[in-house]
Amino acid sequence: MATAQSKTKYVYFFGNGKAEGRGAWKDLLGGKGAGLAEMTNAGVPVPPGFTITTEACNKFYENGKKVPGGLDAEVRENLARVEAAVGRGFGDPEKPLLVSVRSGAKFSMPGMMDTVLNLGLNDRTVAGLARMTGNERFAWDAYRRFIQMFGSVVLGIEKSAFEEKLSALKAGRHAKLDTDLSADDLKELVKTYKALVREKTGREFPAEPAVQLEMSRDAVFNSWHNPRAVTYRRLNDIPANLGTAVNVQAMVFGNLGETSATGVGFTRNPSTGEKEFYGEYLTNAQGEDVVAGIRTPRPIATLGQEMPEVFKQLSEITTRLEKHYRDVQDFEFTVQEGRLYMLQTRTGKRTARAAVKIATDMVTEGLITKEEAILRVEPNQLDQFLHPILDPRANVNVIATGLPASPGAASGRIVFTPEDAVIRGAVEKVVLVRNETCPDDIHGMDAAQGILTARGGMTSHAAVVARGMGKCCVVGCEEIQINEEARLFRVNGHEVKEGDSITLDGSTGRVILGEVPTIEAALSEEYEVFMKWVDEARRLKVRANADVPRDARAARRFGAEGIGLCRTEHMFFAEDRLPIVQQMILAVDTSSRVAALNKLLPMQREDFVGLFREMAGYPVTIRLLDPPLHEFLPKREELMTEIAVLKVTGRDSREILSKEALLNRVESLHEFNPMLGHRGCRLGIVYPEITRMQVTAIIEAACQLDKEGIRVVPEIMIPLVGHVNELKNQKALVDETAGEVMKRTGVTVEYLVGTMIELPRAAVTADQIAEEAEFFSFGTNDLTQTTFGFSRDDAGKFIRHYIQHGILEKDPFQVLDREGVGQLVAMGVEKGRKTRPKLKVGICGEHGGEPSSVEFCHGVGLDYVSCSPYRVPIARVAAAQASIREKGKAAGSDQR
Amino acid sequence: MATAQSKTKYVYFFGNGKAEGRGAWKDLLGGKGAGLAEMTNAGVPVPPGFTITTEACNKFYENGKKVPGGLDAEVRENLARVEAAVGRGFGDPEKPLLVSVRSGAKFSMPGMMDTVLNLGLNDRTVAGLARMTGNERFAWDAYRRFIQMFGSVVLGIEKSAFEEKLSALKAGRHAKLDTDLSADDLKELVKTYKALVREKTGREFPAEPAVQLEMSRDAVFNSWHNPRAVTYRRLNDIPANLGTAVNVQAMVFGNLGETSATGVGFTRNPSTGEKEFYGEYLTNAQGEDVVAGIRTPRPIATLGQEMPEVFKQLSEITTRLEKHYRDVQDFEFTVQEGRLYMLQTRTGKRTARAAVKIATDMVTEGLITKEEAILRVEPNQLDQFLHPILDPRANVNVIATGLPASPGAASGRIVFTPEDAVIRGAVEKVVLVRNETCPDDIHGMDAAQGILTARGGMTSHAAVVARGMGKCCVVGCEEIQINEEARLFRVNGHEVKEGDSITLDGSTGRVILGEVPTIEAALSEEYEVFMKWVDEARRLKVRANADVPRDARAARRFGAEGIGLCRTEHMFFAEDRLPIVQQMILAVDTSSRVAALNKLLPMQREDFVGLFREMAGYPVTIRLLDPPLHEFLPKREELMTEIAVLKVTGRDSREILSKEALLNRVESLHEFNPMLGHRGCRLGIVYPEITRMQVTAIIEAACQLDKEGIRVVPEIMIPLVGHVNELKNQKALVDETAGEVMKRTGVTVEYLVGTMIELPRAAVTADQIAEEAEFFSFGTNDLTQTTFGFSRDDAGKFIRHYIQHGILEKDPFQVLDREGVGQLVAMGVEKGRKTRPKLKVGICGEHGGEPSSVEFCHGVGLDYVSCSPYRVPIARVAAAQASIREKGKAAGSDQR
Repeated sequence: MATAQSKTKYVYFFGNGKAEGRGAWKDLLGGKGAGLAEMTNAGVPVPPGFTITTEACNKFYENGKKVPGGLDAEVRENLARVEAAVGRGFGDPEKPLLVSVRSGAKFSMPGMMDTVLNLGLNDRTVAGLARMTGNERFAWDAYRRFIQMFGSVVLGIEKSAFEEKLSALKAGRHAKLDTDLSADDLKELVKTYKALVREKTGREFPAEPAVQLEMSRDAVFNSWHNPRAVTYRRLNDIPANLGTAVNVQAMVFGNLGETSATGVGFTRNPSTGEKEFYGEYLTNAQGEDVVAGIRTPRPIATLGQEMPEVFKQLSEITTRLEKHYRDVQDFEFTVQEGRLYMLQTRTGKRTARAAVKIATDMVTEGLITKEEAILRVEPNQLDQFLHPILDPRANVNVIATGLPASPGAASGRIVFTPEDAVIRGAVEKVVLVRNETCPDDIHGMDAAQGILTARGGMTSHAAVVARGMGKCCVVGCEEIQINEEARLFRVNGHEVKEGDSITLDGSTGRVILGEVPTIEAALSEEYEVFMKWVDEARRLKVRANADVPRDARAARRFGAEGIGLCRTEHMFFAEDRLPIVQQMILAVDTSSRVAALNKLLPMQREDFVGLFREMAGYPVTIRLLDPPLHEFLPKREELMTEIAVLKVTGRDSREILSKEALLNRVESLHEFNPMLGHRGCRLGIVYPEITRMQVTAIIEAACQLDKEGIRVVPEIMIPLVGHVNELKNQKALVDETAGEVMKRTGVTVEYLVGTMIELPRAAVTADQIAEEAEFFSFGTNDLTQTTFGFSRDDAGKFIRHYIQHGILEKDPFQVLDREGVGQLVAMGVEKGRKTRPKLKVGICGEHGGEPSSVEFCHGVGLDYVSCSPYRVPIARVAAAQASIREKGKAAGSDQR
Repeated sequence: MATAQSKTKYVYFFGNGKAEGRGAWKDLLGGKGAGLAEMTNAGVPVPPGFTITTEACNKFYENGKKVPGGLDAEVRENLARVEAAVGRGFGDPEKPLLVSVRSGAKFSMPGMMDTVLNLGLNDRTVAGLARMTGNERFAWDAYRRFIQMFGSVVLGIEKSAFEEKLSALKAGRHAKLDTDLSADDLKELVKTYKALVREKTGREFPAEPAVQLEMSRDAVFNSWHNPRAVTYRRLNDIPANLGTAVNVQAMVFGNLGETSATGVGFTRNPSTGEKEFYGEYLTNAQGEDVVAGIRTPRPIATLGQEMPEVFKQLSEITTRLEKHYRDVQDFEFTVQEGRLYMLQTRTGKRTARAAVKIATDMVTEGLITKEEAILRVEPNQLDQFLHPILDPRANVNVIATGLPASPGAASGRIVFTPEDAVIRGAVEKVVLVRNETCPDDIHGMDAAQGILTARGGMTSHAAVVARGMGKCCVVGCEEIQINEEARLFRVNGHEVKEGDSITLDGSTGRVILGEVPTIEAALSEEYEVFMKWVDEARRLKVRANADVPRDARAARRFGAEGIGLCRTEHMFFAEDRLPIVQQMILAVDTSSRVAALNKLLPMQREDFVGLFREMAGYPVTIRLLDPPLHEFLPKREELMTEIAVLKVTGRDSREILSKEALLNRVESLHEFNPMLGHRGCRLGIVYPEITRMQVTAIIEAACQLDKEGIRVVPEIMIPLVGHVNELKNQKALVDETAGEVMKRTGVTVEYLVGTMIELPRAAVTADQIAEEAEFFSFGTNDLTQTTFGFSRDDAGKFIRHYIQHGILEKDPFQVLDREGVGQLVAMGVEKGRKTRPKLKVGICGEHGGEPSSVEFCHGVGLDYVSCSPYRVPIARVAAAQASIREKGKAAGSDQR
C-alpha cells in the first residue's frame, strides 16, 4: 500500500469498511477526509468515496491552476471503485451514481469553502434516478438543485439569478412553497436554468459527469482563496499555505420522504460543556438545509421517538467516536429510507466555558491527561470567562426569547447587514440582526458585539461561528419579523429600528430592549481547577500592565504575579493634573519647571502607594515618563485656526497674544514624527528634574510602605534607550535621587534600575546596555514599529491591504513577528545575558497576552510576560501550553 | 630609563640636548611635548622643561579632579633639573626661574586650551628678575601680565576686568600705549590687580610659585573640557578621551628689547602649498602677541635683514625638522637677546589646495610614497577644490584689501559678533567681521561663510582656524575701522552696516561690496595627478546621488562611476508636474489615477533619457516613488485655517465646499508619523499603477537609448522593503511591465531589480530578501532613523544636547554609527551574500560621502558608496585611504 509520503499518490479511497487513509493524516487529507477514512476503518457506516489530497491542491496553485499529471487517471480508477461499492455507474442512464464534492482543509472552516451536491445528473441520468427512486419529482428537484449549486459555485453565476427564476415560476404556478411545484414544473425550471447558464456564460451547461467532476474539483481548489475563506483564516490564525482536500463521495439522500432525514450533532453540549447528546435534524431534507439555518430543525431527542433504531445506532456510533478521538465530536448524518449514514465527524468547536468543563471532565473520566486538557483550551477563548454578564438585579424589558446559542451578554445598536455592522461597528457597539447568517456575513459578525437570528437552530451557521468567536449569540428567535428594507423588526407589538439599542443574553436566549448594566462573571469551579493545573505547568511568570490601583486589583484577581508595566504618563493626563503638567511644560526655565514638578510630586507618590499596596509582595515595574510633551498641550492646528478666526473677527488682541504665545511653545515642541522624537529617556536626559521628581515619588512611596511593613521592590524602568550612555546617565540620576530620599527618610529600600528594549539599536547593543541594566523589558510595540518602520497610528490601512494580499500573514502588532522582530528579541536576550547571566528579562508589549507570542517568549527564555489584566489568564494558559509542547509530554494534539 | 609604558612615571624631562620622551609618543606627551622632546634630542636649541603626561590628565578626571599620587614629587624633581640646566631657582629671589605652563594634546587644537606665562613671579622674585635683566620695567610688566593671565585662566576672572583697570591707569597717566607706562605705573597696576583678585575670589593672589604651578597645571587639565575645546574637537573629530599633557618650560623672553623677538612660521606656504619659507615675527614681543593677532607682524624674510645669523640658523633648523618629520612644520621661536630658541614644532595645518600640492611635491622630492601622500590629505577638505571662485568677468567694487589668509570666495550679510553669526547664520549666509578673532569665537566662525579681520597676520588665530575649516578668510585688513557698538565699519569713505552684503576673495585678499557671482573652480594639475593615485589605490567604487541631468553631469566631472540613487519624487515636485501629481493623488478611482499617471509618463521618460545619456556606459540606480503622498498636497493646518476664516467671514460657500473636499482627502492621507507611514514600496503595492508608470518610463527610456547605440543597465530599486513578500510583489510587477514595454518596442534591454535596505527588519532578514533582490543599497539615513528611533526632522535638538553631554560622540546622521547601525549593515551584507554570493551591495545614505563611514563600508565589503556629487572626490580619497590602511602599506601616519 502506498504511504502518505508517496509523491505521486493524490487520491485515497474509503469504502466497504476499509480506507487507504488514516485519521491522523489531516495535513494530507484535510479534517473531513481524515475523519471519513477513520470512521470507515472503525466500521462506521459511511457512503464510499475518495479524497483528493491537499498536496494536489498545492500543486494546482504551483502549476498555475493546473492539476498535477496522473491525477485524472487516479480519479477515474477510484470512481470505478465507488461504482463497484454502490453498484451504480457514474453517468449510467439506468442506475446513475451521484456524488457530492466537498472541500476539507486541515482545520475546519465551516461553510467557508464550496460544496457541490447531486453531481452526475444530466438529461439522461435524471430519468434513471427517477426510475431508481420511483420518485420523478425528487429526481427533477435534485437536478434543478444541482444546476443551481453548480451554477453558482462552479460557474460563478449569482445565486439570486436562480432564485428569481424560481420565484417567477412559483408566482406563475401560484405556488407558495417549493414543494408545491410538480415534477413538470421542475422540468421546466431545469430548462429555464439551463438557458440562464447559456446566457450568463455563453456556453451550454456541461452534461458530461466527468467534466462536471473536473470543474467542481477545480472550483473547490479555487475556493481556498475566496475572500470569506481568507477572512476566516485570518480571524482563526490558519496558515494560508495548507490548501484544501476534495472529498468525492457517493450521495445518500435525506430527502426521499418521511423515513429519510438529515442532521448534525455534538457528543457534548458545545455551549455549556455538559455531557449530553446534543443535536438537531430535519426529516425529508438535504444536508445543507440544517446547517444553513433556513428551516429551524427539531432537537435530536425527538429522533429517539421518530426513529428509535436509528437513534440508538447513532448514539452508539457517536459515543464510540468520542472515545476513539478522545474529544468532543461534531458529526453529520443522513438517514436514507431508514438507513443511517455518517457523513462527517470532527472535533467540535465549543465556548471557553464548555472547553474548560469538557477538558476537566475528561481528565476526571480518565480520557485525557492534565497536560492534554491544558492543550485542549484555546487560550484566546479564555477572556470569554472574564466578559461581564447581565446584572441580575437590573430591570429588563424582555421582548422575545430565542435559543441560547453562545453565552455572554451583548448590548449595542441594531444593524441589519454585515456591511452596516462593519461601518457602524468601527465607531460604536452594534448587534447584528439577521433572518439567518451565511458564510458571506462573517466580517459583519466579527464587527458586532452579538448576533441575533430569527431562524436556525443551535447548530446553525450563526451559532457555530459565534461560539467559535466567543461572541454572544441568540438564534431561532422566530417571534421577530425582520423587514430588512425598512431597517426594522417587529416583535410582540414593538417596532425596533436600526440604531435602537438592544441587549442579548446568550445564556438564556433573552432579547431585551435597551442597554442593560453588566457585572463581572463569577469564575466557575472548573475554571479554578483548570487554572491551577495551568499554573503548575508553566515556567513563564505572568504580570500585568496596570497604571492605577483599580487595574492592579483586577490583575491580581486574574492571577497576575506583579506589574510588568506601569505607564506613569497615564497619571499625568488626569483632569486635576493636566494643568500642572502644562505649567511644567510651558515653564521658561528650570526653576519654574521644578516648581510645577513639586506640585505633581505628592500626587505621583500617592499613585505609587496605591499600586504598591495592591501588589504587596510582588514586583512592580514603573516606566518613567515616555510620551512627547506636546501630547499634553492643545493641538497645534486647533490653535492656529482659533487665532486666524480671532484675527479676522477683530477680537481682543490680548487674547490673540496669549494664544499666540501658547502656539509658539506648541510649535517649538511640534514634531513631524513624534514617535521618533523627543520622548522616552530623551526627556529625562534633557530635563533631569522630571526623572528626579518621579524617582523621588517612587522611593518615597516604597519607604512609606516599608514603614507599614509592606515590602515592595520597585523596578524603575528607563524607556526608549538606544545607547548605553543614555541609561548610564539616567541610572546615575536615579541612584543619586534614591540615595537622597533614603537618607532623608531613614529607610532603606531595595530597587532595580533597568530599561525597555524597544529600539533595534538597543537589541543589537544589548551586551553594552546590560552593563548598566539590572533588567530588560522588551517593548515589542515600539520595537515592531521601528523594526518594520510601521507607525502604529498610521499603518492600519496598508497592513490590512498587506494581509488581504498575502504580503503579511498576520498583523505584526498583534502577533509577534518571529522572523524579524523576534530575531532582535532573541539577540537582545542572548547578548544581555552574555554580559549579565542573571539578567531579568520580560516583555510588556501587547504581544505579552497573545498566545503565539507568549510561546515565542517561552522559547527564547524570557522570565515573564506582561499584558493587560484581562489577558492575564490567556497568557497563563499560553505559557503552560508552550511549556508542555516544549517538553513533548502531551500525547494529544491541540484543538482548534 | 623608564619607558612610556611605565604605570607610575608621569613626568618626562627635556633639556641639555637630551629628552626622556620621543617624538612618536604623541599619545602620552601630546603633540607639543613630543615635538619638544624630539627637537631636544635632535640638538635643536629648546629651553629645558618637562611634560606631565596625558595619562596624568586622564587619572585627574578619573579621580574626581585629583592628580595621581607621586606626581607632585616627580614635578619637584624635574623642576630641580630645569633649575640646574638654566642655573636659576624656582622662587629664588636672586635668580628666579620663570616657567611657562602650556597645554598640549595629541592633536593640535590651536588656542583652544589654556596657557600661563611668566609663572614664578611674586613680590620677591620680581625684584630678582629686574636685577637679573637690568630692566625693572620689563620685570614689572612681566609680573602684571602674569597676574592678568593667571587671574583669567586659573582663577576664572573676566579678562575685561583687568583690561578696565589697565585702561583706567592709562587714562590717569594720559598714556596712549601700554609701553607709555613706567615701571612705577606698573607696580601700581600690580597692586590694583592683586586687589581685584582679592575682591573677585575672596583670597590673596597666590605668592608661592609651587602653588602657582599646581593651580596652573590643574587649570590646563580642566581646560580639556572647556566649551571651546569641546566644540573644536567636535568640529575636528577628535575623541574626547585623549586628555591633554602639560608642558612646563623655562621662560625665554622675546620682549627684552630690540635684539629680542618672537615669531611663528611654516616650512611651506600653508595656503597655496608653494615650497617657500613662510612666517611672521615681532621684535620686542612675547609669544602670544603674534598668534593672538593683536599687532600685525612682519614677514619672516625681514628677519634675514634684521638678524641675519638668527635667520640662517632658523632656516637650517626648520628645514631639518621638515626632513625629519617628512611633513610641513608649523613652528614657534623666540629670540632672547640675539639667541634663538625653538618653542614648538608640529605638523602644519593647510588648505586642501596646499595639502594636495605639498603631498604631490613631496612624492616628487622622494620624501614620501604615493600611499603616504594619499593619507596626508584630509578627505573632507577636498570639497574646497570644488567650491566656486569669483567670476573674473564680474564688475566688482573693491573697498579694501587684506591678507589672503584662506582661499575661496564668500558672500554674505555682515555680522560683528560670533553670537550674531550663529543666529543669523541659521537662516542666511553671513560674513563675520572682527578686529581679531580669539578661541571664544570659534562657533561664530563655524557659522559664517567667511571671516574678515582688521588685524593679525597670515598665522593669526583667524587665519589658522579658517584654513583648518576650509573657510574663506581675509585678515589684517587694517584699512577698515570697526565700530562694533554701532554695528558698522568704515573704510575709504564707505560706511558698511550690519546686514549689508559683502564678498571676500580669499585668494587675493580683496573685500568687495555686495554679492559677486561665482564660477566653478578649475581643478589644478596636482589635483588631477593626486586623484589618479587615489583611484588606483581604492577598491570601493564611488557613485553619485543625482536626480536630474545637471547633477549627473557634475557627478561625472567629479569622478562618479554611475548613479547610486536617483530619487524619482524630486521629478514629481517640478512646477509643471505637481498639479498632475495632485490629480493622481486626488483621483477617486483607479482609472482616473491611471489617466493622471499617463500624463506624467512622457515627462518621467524624458527625465530618464537625460540621466542615461549623461551616464552612458555607467549603471544608474533608480528608486521608485518613496515619500508619502500628502507631501505633494497643501498643508492640512493651512487648509483648516483657511476654511475656518472663510466660514466666519461668510464667503462663497462653493469655495468652502471645494476646500473642505480637498481637506477631507488631505485628512484621509494625514499621518501622525509619516516617516513610518504609507510610503516607499507600500505605495507601489497599494497603487500598482504608480510602479507600472515609473517602470514603463524607465524601460522605454532605456529602449530609446539602445536604439541610439547607448547602452544602459537601469537598476530599479524598490524602497523601504521590510519583508521579502513586498519585494516579490513589486518585482513581479516590474518584470511584467518591463516585458510588456520590450515586447512593444521590440528592443531588449538588461535591467536589475533590487532594494534599499533601510529598515532593521530588512537587515535581519536579508537572507530572505536576497532571494528576490539582485542588488542591495543601504539607505543609512532611514536605517539610522529606525535603528535609533530618531526622526531626522525632529531629533536635531536632543542630538545636540547628547553630543554636548557626551552621551553620543557624533551625530549618527553624519557619521555612521558602527556599533548599532553598522552591525545591522554588516549583518545585511553577510546574510544577503550567503543567499546570493554575487549580490551587488552599495550604500546611498548621506554617509556615503563621509570619510569614516566610507572606511566602514570598505571594511564590511560593500561594492560601492554613493553620495552627493560634491562629495564624490571626498569619498574617492576616503576609499583609497581605507584601502591603504587596510593593507598596512603606509609607513607614515595620517595628518589632521
